[in-house]
Amino acid sequence: MIEQFIFEFFAAIGTIAFAVSGAFKGIRHRLDVLGVLVLAFVTAIGGGLVRDALLHRTPAVFIDIWPALFALVGCLLALLSNMLSKERILSWTNPESRTFLILDAIGLAAFTVTGAKLGAVSGLNIFGIILLAAITGVGGGVIRDMLVGEIPLVLNADFYATATLIGGFVFGVLYMYNFATPWPSILSFIVTLSLRLLAIWRGWKLPVL
Amino acid sequence: MIEQFIFEFFAAIGTIAFAVSGAFKGIRHRLDVLGVLVLAFVTAIGGGLVRDALLHRTPAVFIDIWPALFALVGCLLALLSNMLSKERILSWTNPESRTFLILDAIGLAAFTVTGAKLGAVSGLNIFGIILLAAITGVGGGVIRDMLVGEIPLVLNADFYATATLIGGFVFGVLYMYNFATPWPSILSFIVTLSLRLLAIWRGWKLPVL
Amino acid sequence: MIEQFIFEFFAAIGTIAFAVSGAFKGIRHRLDVLGVLVLAFVTAIGGGLVRDALLHRTPAVFIDIWPALFALVGCLLALLSNMLSKERILSWTNPESRTFLILDAIGLAAFTVTGAKLGAVSGLNIFGIILLAAITGVGGGVIRDMLVGEIPLVLNADFYATATLIGGFVFGVLYMYNFATPWPSILSFIVTLSLRLLAIWRGWKLPVL
Repeated sequence: MIEQFIFEFFAAIGTIAFAVSGAFKGIRHRLDVLGVLVLAFVTAIGGGLVRDALLHRTPAVFIDIWPALFALVGCLLALLSNMLSKERILSWTNPESRTFLILDAIGLAAFTVTGAKLGAVSGLNIFGIILLAAITGVGGGVIRDMLVGEIPLVLNADFYATATLIGGFVFGVLYMYNFATPWPSILSFIVTLSLRLLAIWRGWKLPVL
Repeated sequence: MIEQFIFEFFAAIGTIAFAVSGAFKGIRHRLDVLGVLVLAFVTAIGGGLVRDALLHRTPAVFIDIWPALFALVGCLLALLSNMLSKERILSWTNPESRTFLILDAIGLAAFTVTGAKLGAVSGLNIFGIILLAAITGVGGGVIRDMLVGEIPLVLNADFYATATLIGGFVFGVLYMYNFATPWPSILSFIVTLSLRLLAIWRGWKLPVL
Repeated sequence: MIEQFIFEFFAAIGTIAFAVSGAFKGIRHRLDVLGVLVLAFVTAIGGGLVRDALLHRTPAVFIDIWPALFALVGCLLALLSNMLSKERILSWTNPESRTFLILDAIGLAAFTVTGAKLGAVSGLNIFGIILLAAITGVGGGVIRDMLVGEIPLVLNADFYATATLIGGFVFGVLYMYNFATPWPSILSFIVTLSLRLLAIWRGWKLPVL
C-alpha cells in the first residue's frame, strides 16, 4: 500500500512536470491560451491515452479526475512562471533548469513503471511491455512536438527514451522471472531514474550514424 | 425520435463541410487525387475514429456507411468547386466564405454533442466528456493539419475549439444533474453553435501569451 | 494451412522491408541510434498498432514476438548497409533500388490482405474493410513521415496507397459475395501486388489537381 502511495505521488510530480514542459513549448511557439492548455494536457496525459487505446482499457484519466487536475496545475504554474519570468520566481519550472529536469526524470520513471506494469498484467510479451513503458513515458512529449511541427526531441537528442526502454526491459524480465510485487516496479523505477539522472549529469547523448 | 433525426441531419452537414475543408487543404498543398481524398476523409471522420478508439467501440463509420458517403460527397463538391472556381459557382464551399463557416459551425456543434453524449453514457468523468466532445469536434481537423505539416489551426487561431470545450462542459454538467434527455444535447448544441457563430461574426480570438 | 504459411512469409518480408525504409529515413534525417530504431519499428508495426486500436484487439505484435524480431532484423540490415555503402554490399536494401521496391510491394500486398481480413471477420462494412487494409498497408509509413516532419509520401507521390485501396476493395467485394476462403485473400494479394509492380515499372503517378 505504502509503495502504491509513493508511486502515485511520483506520477503526480510527473504529470505536473510534463504539463509544464508542454505549456512552455506552447508559449514559445506563440500559441493562444487554448493552444498552451492543449499542449500542456497532451504532454501530461497523451502517452497514457495512446497506451490505454492500445490496451483497449477506458483511459484512466477519464475515470480518475486527479491527473487532469495535476495537468491543470502544471499549466497554471507555467503560465504564472512565464508572467513572473523577470523576477525569476518559479524559475525551477523552466524546462532547462536543473530542478525541472530532475522532477521530469522522476515523472519519466514513474510513467515508465505504470506503462510496463499495465503491459505485464495484460499478459503481453517483453516487446509489448517495453513499448507500453516507452509510450507512457515519452508518448505525450512526442505528440506535443508533432503538434508544433518539430521532430520529436526523443528521436535525436539526449539519453531520454533510452532510459525508459531499459527501465521497461528491467520490469519485463523481473516480472517474467516471477519476482514478487513490488520489486519489478521498484527496481525498474530506480534504473530508469538513475540512468536519466546520470544522463543529465554527464551530458550523455546517443551517437548519430 | 424527431430530435434524433435533426441531429443526424446536422451531423451530415458537418461531415460534408469537414470533408470540403480537408479536400481544399489538400488541393492547396498540391496533393494528388488520393491525397485530397485522404485529407477529406481524415477531416470528416478522423475525430470520430480517435474517439471510438479511446472508448474501445467499433468505429461508428465502420458499421454505418452513411458518414463515409457524406464525406465522399464533400470531397466531390470541393473538387467540382475547385474546377469551377472561375465561374464562382459553388462558391459557398470555399472554406473562407461566410456560408461555409456557418455550415462548418453547425457540424462542429453536432459533433460536439455526439462526442459528449458517448462519453457521458460510457460513465466518464466531466474531463472525459469534455475531451471526447473536443476530439470529436476538432480531432479530424488537427490530424488534417498535422498531415500537411502545419501547426493545427485550432491551437493558434480563432475561437473554435473553445466553443467545443464549453459545449462539452455544458453537456457534462446538465447530464450529471440528471437533466432529462434530450435537454443536455439540445442546450449543448445551442451553446456551441452560438459561441462559434458569435466568434465568426465578432472576429473573436483568444489572447496570445 | 499452406497458404497461411505463405502469407506469413510475405508479411515477414514486408515487416523487414518496412523497417529498412524507416531506418534509412532516420539515418538520412541524422537521428541518433534510438531515433533510427524508433523509425524502423514505427514503419514496420505502426500501421498494425493503429488498426488493432481501432478494432479494440490487443495488438498482434504484443502477443506474437516475431514481427518485432523481423523489424529488428530490418533495422540492423539498414544500419549495416549504411556502414557498407561504399562497398555496395547490401545495395538491395537501398529504398530506391528496384529490388527493395519489389520486396516492399510484397509487404504492402501482404499487409493489405491482413488488414482487410481482420476488418471482414469483425463484420465491418466495405468502407471499414478498405480503410483497415489501407491503415495496415501504409499507416506505418505515414507515421514515419509525420515523425520527421515530412508530408506523408503516400499523399502526393506515386501509385502506392491506391494499390492498397483497390486491393482492400477486391477483398471486401469477394468476401461479401461469399467467395470461399482463401480466395478473397489470394486475389486481393495478387491485385495489390500487380498494381504496385505495374506502377513501379511504368512510373504511374496520380494526377495533381
